[in-house]
Amino acid sequence: MLTKTTVSKGDMDPEEFRAAGHELIDWIADYRARIPQLPVQAQVAPGEVAAKLPTWAPEEAEPFGRVLDDLDGVVVPGITQVQHPRYFGWFPSNASLSSVLGDLAASGLGALGITWQSAPALTEVEAVVVEWLRELTALPESWQGVIQDTASSACLVALLAARERVTDYSEARGGMQAETAPLRVYATSHAHSSIGKAVALAGYGQDNLRLIEVDPVTYAMRPEALAAAVAADVAAGFRPAAVVASIGTTGTTAVDPVAQIVSVARRYGMWVHVDAAMAGSALLLPEMRWLADGVEGADSLAWNPHKWLGTVLDCSLLYVADPVHLIRVMSTSPSYLRSAVDGEVTQYKDWGIPLGRRFRALKLWFHLRLDGAEAIRARLRRDLANARWLAEQVSSTPGWRVLAPVNLQTVVLRHEPPGVVSDPGAVLDAGALNAHTLSWVDSVNASGAALVTPSLLDGTWAVRVSIGAEPTERRDVEELWTVLQRAAASSGR
Amino acid sequence: MLTKTTVSKGDMDPEEFRAAGHELIDWIADYRARIPQLPVQAQVAPGEVAAKLPTWAPEEAEPFGRVLDDLDGVVVPGITQVQHPRYFGWFPSNASLSSVLGDLAASGLGALGITWQSAPALTEVEAVVVEWLRELTALPESWQGVIQDTASSACLVALLAARERVTDYSEARGGMQAETAPLRVYATSHAHSSIGKAVALAGYGQDNLRLIEVDPVTYAMRPEALAAAVAADVAAGFRPAAVVASIGTTGTTAVDPVAQIVSVARRYGMWVHVDAAMAGSALLLPEMRWLADGVEGADSLAWNPHKWLGTVLDCSLLYVADPVHLIRVMSTSPSYLRSAVDGEVTQYKDWGIPLGRRFRALKLWFHLRLDGAEAIRARLRRDLANARWLAEQVSSTPGWRVLAPVNLQTVVLRHEPPGVVSDPGAVLDAGALNAHTLSWVDSVNASGAALVTPSLLDGTWAVRVSIGAEPTERRDVEELWTVLQRAAASSGR
Repeated sequence: MLTKTTVSKGDMDPEEFRAAGHELIDWIADYRARIPQLPVQAQVAPGEVAAKLPTWAPEEAEPFGRVLDDLDGVVVPGITQVQHPRYFGWFPSNASLSSVLGDLAASGLGALGITWQSAPALTEVEAVVVEWLRELTALPESWQGVIQDTASSACLVALLAARERVTDYSEARGGMQAETAPLRVYATSHAHSSIGKAVALAGYGQDNLRLIEVDPVTYAMRPEALAAAVAADVAAGFRPAAVVASIGTTGTTAVDPVAQIVSVARRYGMWVHVDAAMAGSALLLPEMRWLADGVEGADSLAWNPHKWLGTVLDCSLLYVADPVHLIRVMSTSPSYLRSAVDGEVTQYKDWGIPLGRRFRALKLWFHLRLDGAEAIRARLRRDLANARWLAEQVSSTPGWRVLAPVNLQTVVLRHEPPGVVSDPGAVLDAGALNAHTLSWVDSVNASGAALVTPSLLDGTWAVRVSIGAEPTERRDVEELWTVLQRAAASSGR
Repeated sequence: MLTKTTVSKGDMDPEEFRAAGHELIDWIADYRARIPQLPVQAQVAPGEVAAKLPTWAPEEAEPFGRVLDDLDGVVVPGITQVQHPRYFGWFPSNASLSSVLGDLAASGLGALGITWQSAPALTEVEAVVVEWLRELTALPESWQGVIQDTASSACLVALLAARERVTDYSEARGGMQAETAPLRVYATSHAHSSIGKAVALAGYGQDNLRLIEVDPVTYAMRPEALAAAVAADVAAGFRPAAVVASIGTTGTTAVDPVAQIVSVARRYGMWVHVDAAMAGSALLLPEMRWLADGVEGADSLAWNPHKWLGTVLDCSLLYVADPVHLIRVMSTSPSYLRSAVDGEVTQYKDWGIPLGRRFRALKLWFHLRLDGAEAIRARLRRDLANARWLAEQVSSTPGWRVLAPVNLQTVVLRHEPPGVVSDPGAVLDAGALNAHTLSWVDSVNASGAALVTPSLLDGTWAVRVSIGAEPTERRDVEELWTVLQRAAASSGR
């Protein structure tokens, strides 16, 4: 029996947890309710948070109230409120409260996911919910998936799988250093920075990431440019290993044409990885499935429920067409896989980098069950409509421009006032325009009223308005539009 | 203002969360209190959990009570209870309730850790608590650390850093495939499987992982064997890149001699990574710091607070002597690092693989503050004493043997009864001994009364008893010893 002993064991017992847990649940509910009153962007200077904390760890246990006080006084003012209805920065990073409960259940259970045997339910619930999501997003029926932490890790895993396919499992011999004809990876300059990082870490070398030209209007990969680059590389003695097709790039939510990319890749036996980190959520909507047209010819796809869908970070899904290959690449215990339960159970340790895994499936399971798929779809459609509405306002307002197709829920815009941009066809005063843009964006963000992200597009600063925080309603987008116009009008000119 | 709308938005609101959250906290407190009555090992067959779940995701939201019912009816029976007082398997995987609260706070805040700017407190609390732990474990003052998910990922990061140091940043050029003299990595056959996996994934190739002989009694790396292997490799045209010293191996908690390994490595400019996944917790105890003697000459060390220390999974610490080098290897945005806040802030995205990071520091922060360092040390000392006690019982009981030095809290033992092992010096009937061992271990584990892990040692099955679950008291170890003896005595002979 577990009973309290007189010796301090350094552990909080269930009754102490019950009392503190109720306080913390109330704290979170209250905090979520007051987020709209908080500044969106954290208003702290570098080092300000650290300066409020003691230099050394406490020797004696502290009362829970003091920790709660620090959440209020130190932590909340120290984070940018991405759960805020006027958060339009980077991409949505929703932490739906239903998924927070699932994550709490995972922590409370404290299960150890190292093999099927260590926690059968951790493996089997994951297999089931990953299949739920596959069906909801209409990915190929034969594909199988796994939960990773982020799309960065998922992309690295995909490029490792690609490397091993083209080298016939060089990892089991002398590795990349025994390869003679250099392997190449293809993507556009609009692909996420994690692609270049994965290319570097997987040992291809950044010189072997070849950036393919994009269409000047859509910013999507030009498949004929890919075909030409690959053909030239092959002629020059390179081996094409993989191409990453982005559906929903970070800069403009551009959509690389997967079907045409697959058709080029097939000719050369290249691995096609689809980076749908943001756009994956949209695949829940039948009317948005054009984004992934041709995906059945790809080898892998990753997307992040921890973005727009709203399953609390970290939760990324990686689907593969050939799980046997992935397992061979990531497994270091092939003899173990030939055990008595082989063929009967999944060992997710062999589908990614970490051995020990959290029970992440619970947050997806809770999220889908407590919110329901149809309500989630309704929210996503609300956000798409809000983005279209904002794009219409911007397009129809003199001095404002929408700079890229609104494929998803992100509007890339710029204020180009007279005097900065004289008239169509005139030479832009790029320096003045950049200064103007950064000035009014900074004033919006510094005010705390809303958060938007400046980003470079074709070498000039633009502004991304990424709609899709869970509490963001039309009135919040209307308010944002007012705030943007006011800031641009009063920007230091 | 955030107000309820009539349109379903697919989100649980703060008041619904409050109600369900209180129920879940009570559920977790009740569950933790009844763990001692549960079987330790999950008693389910492959597919049994999945068969209880619906094939497709729910379209409509379900009531919270139904989800809670499934936690009781499907999930709890489907996991091995590693929080059980008679869990002695693998390694401890404590999920202290204080750290569970910290993890709940992280989820509730829903912060987005992509840059310092996106969540300054996420970065700065991490820097502070990682420094707290550095001081508590007496690692070099100049070292800096970061939270990773697991020691597997941390080891991969370390071997990538090693690869890039010896190749002078090949990742920025043609990668591993442009290297001519093959790089080599050294470890013993007792090193964790994640070392071999990291060698494979980082592109060295498994042929270039050279396994160094261990001492036949301590199972620790023989430094003179390392020196000879490296010298021979250099003579043969290989380049020594890294050596992994394990302190606390998985099989027997063997301790490779770090100081002597460092001295060999220095001669060749090799990276020394110390894998202290299990033993790191012991470094909180001054009397155990001999485990890491010489660590100040190493380049990196990783250990897992999510093991014995008890900060809920996943939480691994990676410390490096040269963070500037690590950042150069892992960063893909050097221009960004030259920003206005450069030198002032830490960008943890450049210290590991994922871009998006959870607020993992909160669970360490809560754990240390709510339990206090001194009580944690008392618990660790309790476990060390329990392991010594068990080893004494085993050693002094006829027919039983302790097979490896008890450096930490794990006892590796075997029952070698007359008839199986006739007398000292006689030839062992290895087949019969193996059958006997697996038979009685399986009967213990299948009974649910306790869980221990069989493992191969020198080619013969042994039994690991890894003490250190948070609720495990001396009486639990006494009970285990009774259970083991009874099982061995009645094993099908």
